[in-house]
Amino acid sequence: MASLFFEDFIEGEVKTYGAYKVTEAEIIDFARQFDPQPMHLDAAAGAASMLGALAASGWHTCAIMQKLTCEGFLLNAAGRGSPGVSEVKWKMPVFPGDVLSVRRKVLESRTSKTKPDMGLVTFRLELLKSTGEVASEETLVILFARRNPGARLA
Amino acid sequence: MASLFFEDFIEGEVKTYGAYKVTEAEIIDFARQFDPQPMHLDAAAGAASMLGALAASGWHTCAIMQKLTCEGFLLNAAGRGSPGVSEVKWKMPVFPGDVLSVRRKVLESRTSKTKPDMGLVTFRLELLKSTGEVASEETLVILFARRNPGARLA
Repeated sequence: MASLFFEDFIEGEVKTYGAYKVTEAEIIDFARQFDPQPMHLDAAAGAASMLGALAASGWHTCAIMQKLTCEGFLLNAAGRGSPGVSEVKWKMPVFPGDVLSVRRKVLESRTSKTKPDMGLVTFRLELLKSTGEVASEETLVILFARRNPGARLA
Repeated sequence: MASLFFEDFIEGEVKTYGAYKVTEAEIIDFARQFDPQPMHLDAAAGAASMLGALAASGWHTCAIMQKLTCEGFLLNAAGRGSPGVSEVKWKMPVFPGDVLSVRRKVLESRTSKTKPDMGLVTFRLELLKSTGEVASEETLVILFARRNPGARLA
């Protein structure tokens, strides 16, 4: 059973979770499937590119952020899907050996007007390297069930 | 050698490319790796969810859009990476058996002020079902090398 509901996400709250080590094999595997640009497939092409070395597809870094977010809290929450993302910034390349975590901030929390048993939470998610540098960031909206739908109306 | 450069992307231009059939096995495989929420892993959980049936992770649909975009033109272009995406909307679930294509529109094209040998192109990409319905859309910026960097300055 879910233990986190809409009411549990408080505006301004910041949490950090996860420790995920990226491998060269998975960078190449993701790129072969979904983003076969040379700098994501081959060390020499990566070195010659603007990335400076073989580096993960930006979409791969989004997928890793989602994996860490599922494990960090979403699988323990009454999530009801997502309408989308406003803004993804790929700020630094992610290389083999990088250990990634996620810092999440609750930007906004509001009940749904059309679905009174749900609320929308807007998160700023930052993908952090072990140095503390921000490799990428995104603003993601997730719908959650309300714990007590009748208790308070927006 | 690349045959498409910055100058080849004309504002307002619309092109459609790709025909990619989604399988149940790959939906589950992606979800296991990156988005293990029940509605992306299991038919019964999908049927009980807001998606109505087992359906692909939104991030999986972004990855498929990138694959189609690579094959559609990006691997044939002098791409120099992407700073990110402004807005991803997941509008309809993507189910096993859906055949997807991409409609791309060039929203904006401008030379870079800091990198005079490059230009930035903003694309609106729509992931289409075979019915013509838009499953998802995103606004993606890609950097391209200029064919003749000295020929005209913005």
